[in-house]
Amino acid sequence: MQRPIAILDSGVGGLTVVKEVMRQLPREKVIYFGDTARTPYGPRPADEVLRFTREIVDYLMQFKPKMIIIACNTATAVALEDIRSRVSIPVAGVINPGARAAINVSHTSVVGVIGTEGTIRSNAYETALKRIKPNIQVVSLACPKFVPLVEQGNFRSDETYETVLGSIGHLRELPMDTLILGCTHYPFLYETISEVMGRGVKLISSANETAREVSTILHESNRLSGGEEVPVHQFFCSGDPRMFKAIAQQWLGEQIELTPVVWQVPRIG
Amino acid sequence: MQRPIAILDSGVGGLTVVKEVMRQLPREKVIYFGDTARTPYGPRPADEVLRFTREIVDYLMQFKPKMIIIACNTATAVALEDIRSRVSIPVAGVINPGARAAINVSHTSVVGVIGTEGTIRSNAYETALKRIKPNIQVVSLACPKFVPLVEQGNFRSDETYETVLGSIGHLRELPMDTLILGCTHYPFLYETISEVMGRGVKLISSANETAREVSTILHESNRLSGGEEVPVHQFFCSGDPRMFKAIAQQWLGEQIELTPVVWQVPRIG
Repeated sequence: MQRPIAILDSGVGGLTVVKEVMRQLPREKVIYFGDTARTPYGPRPADEVLRFTREIVDYLMQFKPKMIIIACNTATAVALEDIRSRVSIPVAGVINPGARAAINVSHTSVVGVIGTEGTIRSNAYETALKRIKPNIQVVSLACPKFVPLVEQGNFRSDETYETVLGSIGHLRELPMDTLILGCTHYPFLYETISEVMGRGVKLISSANETAREVSTILHESNRLSGGEEVPVHQFFCSGDPRMFKAIAQQWLGEQIELTPVVWQVPRIG
Repeated sequence: MQRPIAILDSGVGGLTVVKEVMRQLPREKVIYFGDTARTPYGPRPADEVLRFTREIVDYLMQFKPKMIIIACNTATAVALEDIRSRVSIPVAGVINPGARAAINVSHTSVVGVIGTEGTIRSNAYETALKRIKPNIQVVSLACPKFVPLVEQGNFRSDETYETVLGSIGHLRELPMDTLILGCTHYPFLYETISEVMGRGVKLISSANETAREVSTILHESNRLSGGEEVPVHQFFCSGDPRMFKAIAQQWLGEQIELTPVVWQVPRIG
């Protein structure tokens, strides 16, 4: 039996990581948990985010995953080290992959980070970036209006454009050449953010970069799936499954049409 | 004392990895060995490349490195698993990072690979790409004229342009959107290759991608350098050091002006 990769998030944001894992690692089986009943995590106190993350990991461990991805920046900032110390399989967060990718692509060494209040307050990106490259300049900005737009499925509209412009438009005055989308919800707004920031700024999607590093970690630890089996993915959410399923189907599109999918609503917490 | 990262290559090609390690991991100390007396490795039989690689690793182990990078595609294809089984520190090659990066950026899933005869004959990229993503299409091409151009320091000239055009120009007819520079010498020719292939084809430099993965591996294994010390890098070559030093200084530029460097010519083999 093929062991799955367990991916968890506060809601639908982690689906951006799922999409990339399915694209970059098509032989791997995914088990996803979106805590839609308790989203967003961004404004919650750290101890609450830690408790929620532990609950979801405990739930997902019944599926005997070979790896866990905390596909939520807020939960990564708060809970990554804790979860690592509690399980014996590799655990990846989304912050370090984004930081390493930004260091790879930035040539001015001035890097912007946008994220939820919780992620920005934690300083996790700045810490990760400076630990590797001390002389890098980091400009961090919380964008609390973005996650609600995404959780409502409002990816492209005039309202979305105005909200994005109003939140990050002033960053264009700075000499940054790289902007980290430090929240897994933000790739849903990729095109709008890209329009607002212009061609001179490269956007780093933590989703793509995390999938790429998961590939590295699975390979280095001899955990890559080898079989010819078509993986059957499973999706769980803690709240109303209709909106969750609609967004997942819209976002994952042909990827879930090509592979079998199971949907479920468990009780946790 | 800070433990170094040992980087080895058949000649000057691995300096493209050194440059990226210095840029992306500026706190890390580098020990480099270029086997300039026996370059190129590309046309040599596999058992000879394996023997040379073992000799260099044995030489470099006296410096107690925390990690080894085989910064040569030919040697990676032949010797990576052998070296991994002989040492107890992480060993990275340059093939898997390039393959994973190509899977990340390609959207047509048609990927080109150019490399030496040895690398292309080994099918190592195709194996690495298909192991992860079985339905990817791979077009491989040996470019035996490129390494001699680089080892002579001939990076940009009409002759170089004509050689590159004559070797890979016909690849433009294919529907590929991504081309892996499957030899660490080729980033020296990056601009010319990019001119020949045009804007529609993204070039993957195994050098950049390897440095990025080294960052991941050092972090995951708790080996990142933490000190404030300015690293003193050391460069060794097995042949005439003048050409080697001239190319290294031209390529690494300000990076070696800013940090202390030691040059040496050892006897090995």
